[in-house]
Amino acid sequence: MEINHTEIDVRYAETDQMGIVHHSNYLIWFEIGRTNFIKQIGFNYADMEARGILSPIIDVQLSYKNPAKYGETVIIETWLKTYDGIRTTYEYRITNQKEDLLVTGSTIHVVVKKDNFKPILLRKTYPEWHQTYKNLIKEEE
Amino acid sequence: MEINHTEIDVRYAETDQMGIVHHSNYLIWFEIGRTNFIKQIGFNYADMEARGILSPIIDVQLSYKNPAKYGETVIIETWLKTYDGIRTTYEYRITNQKEDLLVTGSTIHVVVKKDNFKPILLRKTYPEWHQTYKNLIKEEE
Amino acid sequence: MEINHTEIDVRYAETDQMGIVHHSNYLIWFEIGRTNFIKQIGFNYADMEARGILSPIIDVQLSYKNPAKYGETVIIETWLKTYDGIRTTYEYRITNQKEDLLVTGSTIHVVVKKDNFKPILLRKTYPEWHQTYKNLIKEEE
Amino acid sequence: MEINHTEIDVRYAETDQMGIVHHSNYLIWFEIGRTNFIKQIGFNYADMEARGILSPIIDVQLSYKNPAKYGETVIIETWLKTYDGIRTTYEYRITNQKEDLLVTGSTIHVVVKKDNFKPILLRKTYPEWHQTYKNLIKEEE
Repeated sequence: MEINHTEIDVRYAETDQMGIVHHSNYLIWFEIGRTNFIKQIGFNYADMEARGILSPIIDVQLSYKNPAKYGETVIIETWLKTYDGIRTTYEYRITNQKEDLLVTGSTIHVVVKKDNFKPILLRKTYPEWHQTYKNLIKEEE
Repeated sequence: MEINHTEIDVRYAETDQMGIVHHSNYLIWFEIGRTNFIKQIGFNYADMEARGILSPIIDVQLSYKNPAKYGETVIIETWLKTYDGIRTTYEYRITNQKEDLLVTGSTIHVVVKKDNFKPILLRKTYPEWHQTYKNLIKEEE
Repeated sequence: MEINHTEIDVRYAETDQMGIVHHSNYLIWFEIGRTNFIKQIGFNYADMEARGILSPIIDVQLSYKNPAKYGETVIIETWLKTYDGIRTTYEYRITNQKEDLLVTGSTIHVVVKKDNFKPILLRKTYPEWHQTYKNLIKEEE
Repeated sequence: MEINHTEIDVRYAETDQMGIVHHSNYLIWFEIGRTNFIKQIGFNYADMEARGILSPIIDVQLSYKNPAKYGETVIIETWLKTYDGIRTTYEYRITNQKEDLLVTGSTIHVVVKKDNFKPILLRKTYPEWHQTYKNLIKEEE
């Protein structure tokens, strides 16, 4: 299975007064993992947007196991879970360098036109990407 | 059912280059709704922390229906869904002033000691709060 | 002098592990004060952007006197300091409800075209706004 | 002169609806540069906090020359400008990979006790750090 591994140094600004990383930041870390996953398989999200295509999120699930702390480096693992031509599901696993499991989660995305947020088919607007995702899913089966 | 209604003016800094509110901000809005819900039923989260009690999040579910935009005022509705003495589930519904449904979601929380993050029972450490939540849940049944 | 007063409840997510509001958030609070100042004198920044005009920041000065804390409501005072047709300087003063001075600062802005970030004259593209700022400055003298 | 160079990939969440990085994020990037500068000269800000010492910011100056954009990698240069035993001034310069100058700035810091935010002398509480800063400043003269 194609997995992207991204390392992140926890930022001071990401902590809150509990002394741990504020829970909203994991969504931002997922986004970084997802961007790097896309880069790893040969595409570029910034280019996709330049072509007038956006990939907004429609659903999130997050489970917090242990808190990340300032001074730590965390590892985000990102992989493609499902792709049906309309919806793409990514899964994530975040650990620290002691291999404590911190957070697991998933996000579901669609593809829309930048101008009007109307859904479009990746198969038509970005066929190479569509084909790559189809192949990645097939390898899993 | 006890529901808190909180109004929020979308901040410019909450938008991203899609021209909509970045999806991570809804978790911060949920937190504001939750804080105000707790205030509405007669307690105060800041006081709780001053007593050495934290209520970290262990699970999030979020569904994005429509994007919030800069210039809009959104309304967060927050209510208590379940409370079993250990875990508390809050639910949320965010709409704009045209009554478009923007986001729905839920968060699950536990209660821990500030010093060591060990779980504690609200029944023992903050019995009034425990009783209020028990009563709110009973009214629902 | 025309001053806008905006109240903000400190958000939990705005704190850091020092137990105080992270210093970057005051720039976001200044932005909220500025937006409300503009509303108070009869204009709307969201409309300005809809007309293809942006007002990016070119300079910031910030002095931190006392920290804001979770549980507090702060008051942002915003006023127009200078306007020369090209550059606009706003000043800010943030206090808490005990009237402790927390932060003072200023921001300088220009006006540019949304498409290409080229500078434009407010006098030509939004003459009512230009005239209002000229009048506000004159009243000061 | 001792300069730390830190590379940062712009995060999607750091953009705003102008299509550029929101101006508040540069303060967070300065903080990352400062943390890495401290690491480079042999210390660790997380350890300093564990010893009960905080280094809050008391003054910021920021000049925005060109906007950072999503898809770019930026380089933060951080160096020590002045240190008088009480106040430390760091300076920063942020560029992109085309060597466009994006932002310059400075921050001034004091050292305080974590418990009560009372000022302390680094010379007494952390003499090695004090000596290193004295030496760095002397080399400049």
